[in-house]
Amino acid sequence: MANTKIKNEALRSSILEAASNLFIEKGLAGTKIQDIAGALGITRTNVYYYYKNKEDILEKLTLDVTNLAKEVTTAAIGAKDQDPPAMLRSLVIMYSSFVLKQPILFRVSERNEQNLKAKDRSKVTRARRSVLDNFRAVIERGVVSGHFRGIDPGVTAFSIIGICNWSAWWFRPGGKYKAQEVAEQIADLVAHAVEQPDRQLRARNNGREIVKRIRGELEYLENLIPERPGR
Amino acid sequence: MANTKIKNEALRSSILEAASNLFIEKGLAGTKIQDIAGALGITRTNVYYYYKNKEDILEKLTLDVTNLAKEVTTAAIGAKDQDPPAMLRSLVIMYSSFVLKQPILFRVSERNEQNLKAKDRSKVTRARRSVLDNFRAVIERGVVSGHFRGIDPGVTAFSIIGICNWSAWWFRPGGKYKAQEVAEQIADLVAHAVEQPDRQLRARNNGREIVKRIRGELEYLENLIPERPGR
Repeated sequence: MANTKIKNEALRSSILEAASNLFIEKGLAGTKIQDIAGALGITRTNVYYYYKNKEDILEKLTLDVTNLAKEVTTAAIGAKDQDPPAMLRSLVIMYSSFVLKQPILFRVSERNEQNLKAKDRSKVTRARRSVLDNFRAVIERGVVSGHFRGIDPGVTAFSIIGICNWSAWWFRPGGKYKAQEVAEQIADLVAHAVEQPDRQLRARNNGREIVKRIRGELEYLENLIPERPGR
Repeated sequence: MANTKIKNEALRSSILEAASNLFIEKGLAGTKIQDIAGALGITRTNVYYYYKNKEDILEKLTLDVTNLAKEVTTAAIGAKDQDPPAMLRSLVIMYSSFVLKQPILFRVSERNEQNLKAKDRSKVTRARRSVLDNFRAVIERGVVSGHFRGIDPGVTAFSIIGICNWSAWWFRPGGKYKAQEVAEQIADLVAHAVEQPDRQLRARNNGREIVKRIRGELEYLENLIPERPGR
């Protein structure tokens, strides 16, 4: 019983994956249920056991992907003990990994919106809005706390989401970098894009910090002076 | 004669724009030539004077947009007297402005690739590859010159293109910011993402620079001392 359930789940997600590949290659209009069955070596009846038609597949797939994106990003900003830079890093790593681990599914969910029914479209729009709100909230917090520069939270949130989402269109599993490595590189670019570039400058108003820095600099200068000066 | 030519060009581009809006809203399969004509208040015959069918419209539109993207980015990196940060800034401003000024046309050109003939698909792929190569070349130069951090030119180029391209999906003309303002904000984020964060640190080995900085810091400290100290 449990085994059958696992097998059913595996077949269900194989169907979603095969359908995604075909939707990308041939478009929704150009894909037949027979093509999906053929790609998996199963019968059309097997496919119809799980899904009413290809529109049903697209609908389930898009709702699944967007809801998961919402859950992943909401979980990432849940840690209470993180400062904004640490929280933004978790958010970028988790969201970009989510996209990079299923680029084809993600592309289909993003590119076939016009084929969804109005009710599903608005569900998808709400889930995407939550993803945006999660990014925006962390950025706002970082600007207020002074960890981030005086950037616009909306434009910055869209830009970061743009980097992550676009990776679904260029990342090739088995290429130069693993998904995890790309996620790390993206998080590094994002951190530099938003954080105050020079924490020393932020500490500038603190006289003790400045004296400490001057001591370090004098020591460094001392070492620059030749052993036997010219005079 | 000249007037007729201008009028024809204007109508031709109105057709592309109306068609783009409909492709986004209803998909290629759901759009009829009659819908395009209706949106402009002209007859179907008027549309057929310029385009054979809706696939022809999609083809011209996609080839136009991708070739222009290639030309814009190639022009941006043509200035011989710019260092890598200035060149990357020009590139980002010009490319993101290109996307932000025609977001709907851009979205259609990006989202209907599977509806293109194989020959056109490969032309489009080549033009997009040139855009990528232009970004990558500038980033490589900046890493070698030491202006940029030790980032991967490929992942970084895709990330920057991702920010610019994604703006076509969220930017609304007439909203909080003008296209030009968003382009500036994107260029600012990109500059911070890639440039060495602390030029002062890079200049640290220069004794004269350090002395100059200490002078500035002492002056600042002097101003911190209260007019009437406690002793």
